[in-house]
Amino acid sequence: MKKNYSQLAKLLGYQFNDESLLVQALTHRSFKGAHNERLEFVGDALLGMFVAEALYFAFPKATEGELTRMRSQLVKGQTLTEVAKEYDISSWLLLGPGEMKSGGFRRDSILEDAIESIIGAVYLDSDIEQCRTFVLRLLDERLKQVDPSNALKDPKTQLQEWLQSRKRPLPTYEVAGVSGQAHNQTFKISCTLDNGKLLSATGTSRRKAEQAAARKALEVVKGE
Amino acid sequence: MKKNYSQLAKLLGYQFNDESLLVQALTHRSFKGAHNERLEFVGDALLGMFVAEALYFAFPKATEGELTRMRSQLVKGQTLTEVAKEYDISSWLLLGPGEMKSGGFRRDSILEDAIESIIGAVYLDSDIEQCRTFVLRLLDERLKQVDPSNALKDPKTQLQEWLQSRKRPLPTYEVAGVSGQAHNQTFKISCTLDNGKLLSATGTSRRKAEQAAARKALEVVKGE
Repeated sequence: MKKNYSQLAKLLGYQFNDESLLVQALTHRSFKGAHNERLEFVGDALLGMFVAEALYFAFPKATEGELTRMRSQLVKGQTLTEVAKEYDISSWLLLGPGEMKSGGFRRDSILEDAIESIIGAVYLDSDIEQCRTFVLRLLDERLKQVDPSNALKDPKTQLQEWLQSRKRPLPTYEVAGVSGQAHNQTFKISCTLDNGKLLSATGTSRRKAEQAAARKALEVVKGE
Repeated sequence: MKKNYSQLAKLLGYQFNDESLLVQALTHRSFKGAHNERLEFVGDALLGMFVAEALYFAFPKATEGELTRMRSQLVKGQTLTEVAKEYDISSWLLLGPGEMKSGGFRRDSILEDAIESIIGAVYLDSDIEQCRTFVLRLLDERLKQVDPSNALKDPKTQLQEWLQSRKRPLPTYEVAGVSGQAHNQTFKISCTLDNGKLLSATGTSRRKAEQAAARKALEVVKGE
């Protein structure tokens, strides 16, 4: 069944001069023909820039750290996947037979890539001003809701900033142990502070264990 | 001594309407007054976008992976520090007393940030077209020299792509051991292939040990 891509373009609020660009943006590399990976490369960079610029002007008092965290929240995979679902991008994708059956995580990342590719396609079809308008409309509600204070910092960052603001050296993190079989490992991380105090925590990934150790260390330093 | 910033602007090839933006771009947070961190945030995003766009058009046959690697090479800290040194940015920086004395690595990262901040300042002082012209001139020679084939892939990436092109599952990396004191540790990483073959290697960081194990695995799979 041939899909009527003008219908999707209408939903997206941008009419393509060259509709083949939109089709390409929806074409996964598993499908025959021109796929969307290069468009995704361009779209990702444009998205990052438009969001950075919008936040810079919207929050004249936000620090660089706050701007960075707000941007991460807006351009992260999960956000883009949600946007893709709002426009039902899934039913417009062109996928190879293998990918047609794949669900869950893999499908989410394909949706995220498709949104970035569509941004790239709009840019190539028009210009930077029209592409900015398109991106800001795509993220409209999310841009209105984002807030420097609710872009929460993770414990490692909080610990780092707490120590830096007191001119204390940063902690060191070390792998204290790894146990369990592949795909089911537990990491033990120790976080050593400048005063020699050592806090340990475990997690299913190195990153998670580090965050858990940082959380403990943060409690300790704040109680000192 | 008051610095004549018009002289630097002339070197950079962009005359500011509002020269205080250039001064701010050169002001480290350790100095009193308005510093460059927010400008750096905007400049970093603009730089990434202009380079992505330039590479997209310059290399119509490059894959997304090749474009990504070329971009990393052009926007990485080391490259920006080199650019800053060519314009002798160091002697124009406004630093607090503590930073004045710091050298080496810290100074390099301050130079890198200053280049990104100057890009942000040019944008705020003009528009996106003039900022693009500025960035492309700043990276001129480097953009001409970059090449998909000399943006070399690391062994982990090479191994991954070799296996993927043969539709084989990706390897798994595990920490097989950590020894030594803090700041002087040796990591042992094992890389397990889909056929059960296991290659181990050590390194002074987890990343280095993984790359060394991947290098061994690559030799093995190519010899199979």
